[in-house]
Amino acid sequence: MSGWLAVAGLGPGDPSLVTPEVTAALAEATDVVGYIPYVARVAPRPGLTLHPSDNRVELDRALAALQMAAEGRRVVVVSSGDPGVFAMASALFEVVEARPEFHDLDIRILPGITAMLAAAARAGAPLGHDFCAINLSDNLKPFAEVERRLRHAAQGGFAMAFYNPRSSSRPHQFARVLEILREECEPSRLITFARAVSTAEEALTTVTLAEATPEMADMRTVVIVGNEATRRVGGWVYTPRSVTG
Amino acid sequence: MSGWLAVAGLGPGDPSLVTPEVTAALAEATDVVGYIPYVARVAPRPGLTLHPSDNRVELDRALAALQMAAEGRRVVVVSSGDPGVFAMASALFEVVEARPEFHDLDIRILPGITAMLAAAARAGAPLGHDFCAINLSDNLKPFAEVERRLRHAAQGGFAMAFYNPRSSSRPHQFARVLEILREECEPSRLITFARAVSTAEEALTTVTLAEATPEMADMRTVVIVGNEATRRVGGWVYTPRSVTG
Repeated sequence: MSGWLAVAGLGPGDPSLVTPEVTAALAEATDVVGYIPYVARVAPRPGLTLHPSDNRVELDRALAALQMAAEGRRVVVVSSGDPGVFAMASALFEVVEARPEFHDLDIRILPGITAMLAAAARAGAPLGHDFCAINLSDNLKPFAEVERRLRHAAQGGFAMAFYNPRSSSRPHQFARVLEILREECEPSRLITFARAVSTAEEALTTVTLAEATPEMADMRTVVIVGNEATRRVGGWVYTPRSVTG
Repeated sequence: MSGWLAVAGLGPGDPSLVTPEVTAALAEATDVVGYIPYVARVAPRPGLTLHPSDNRVELDRALAALQMAAEGRRVVVVSSGDPGVFAMASALFEVVEARPEFHDLDIRILPGITAMLAAAARAGAPLGHDFCAINLSDNLKPFAEVERRLRHAAQGGFAMAFYNPRSSSRPHQFARVLEILREECEPSRLITFARAVSTAEEALTTVTLAEATPEMADMRTVVIVGNEATRRVGGWVYTPRSVTG
């Protein structure tokens, strides 16, 4: 029996947004590895061992998964959303880079519906023109780098999607993000706060930049900032395809 | 019978990347509307009328779909990838904006696996840190705007994904894009050309910016440019999660 490892995106929450490719990998797996709430989304069955682990142990989790696959097990590392967007795929390759014994392992990355695109679909089409995805967490980069990217994104006329906008360990940073946006963008710029899209806790709010407050975001929120042409139509928010709009 | 309209993302090509949500909408539809090759991906069945149309008639297509839904039909507008990323969702809302009679229609946007994330998954995790998505076509914006965004994306340290990098009607522009990148980025910067991911014609090539040539892209290619930390490990390409790498 030859082992393999798949890093799979479970999408934003609802089972109808899990691809058949991911469902098939989970059906063949002997082991599922991941952050506790993501592993909880996989149905237990005989022959499948679940390995939930805490947040912020991504490298340990990746190493454990690689070791099991090298031993011949069929391992799925589960991520929320898409594994390549601020999730487990990069963490896995960081470990593979340091461990040449894993270079020939059978590894697949299985894409998923990432949070910003699920949120954009619910809101309308706010990312319908050029856009940026920015992780606002400073766990892995200095906040000065976040600020630099925000300014380039705004000055370049990009719409923006923010992941990890706010957490209890850094409550003041998102207030600073709003300040930077107010320096770079007009007060009428539309911002959508999309919380827990496709789950029972889903909540969407769209306000202007002038109206936005830090408390509108939490760790389960994706924030989408339109570009200067982004507008409302009926209950929807969309960004025109053309620059002249 | 009350009509509805869904704008659905079919993903990059393989049926295993179509979400169950989209499959369910197609199963309930009376009419499927879209660009010829995308409608061709929907299996015919009794009771379903297929309405394939040519490229560059997005607004006509959206209007026809809205009119059918208003008449009580169940209409799915199909896009490749995700409908909200350089696809039909924005075109639809442009028409809705001009036609208040459609504002109360039952409209849903159903997300899909967009080309850049399917390509990134095949390559490894090149979009594992902050990134931008840029449509290189100048059908709907002046090329000067493309250039401005490229420079901000590069100067901001973003990885980049390019949609519509090159077509027969504008063969020289992608050469100019590479020139701009060479002014802004180091020659060793990694670029992945991902053609027709998840189809029989899939082909991935990763080269350095110094080695890249315009002919490496065509209209079925998504181009992914790493950030300065993007690197190879084994046969994979990945971008570390942290800035210091």
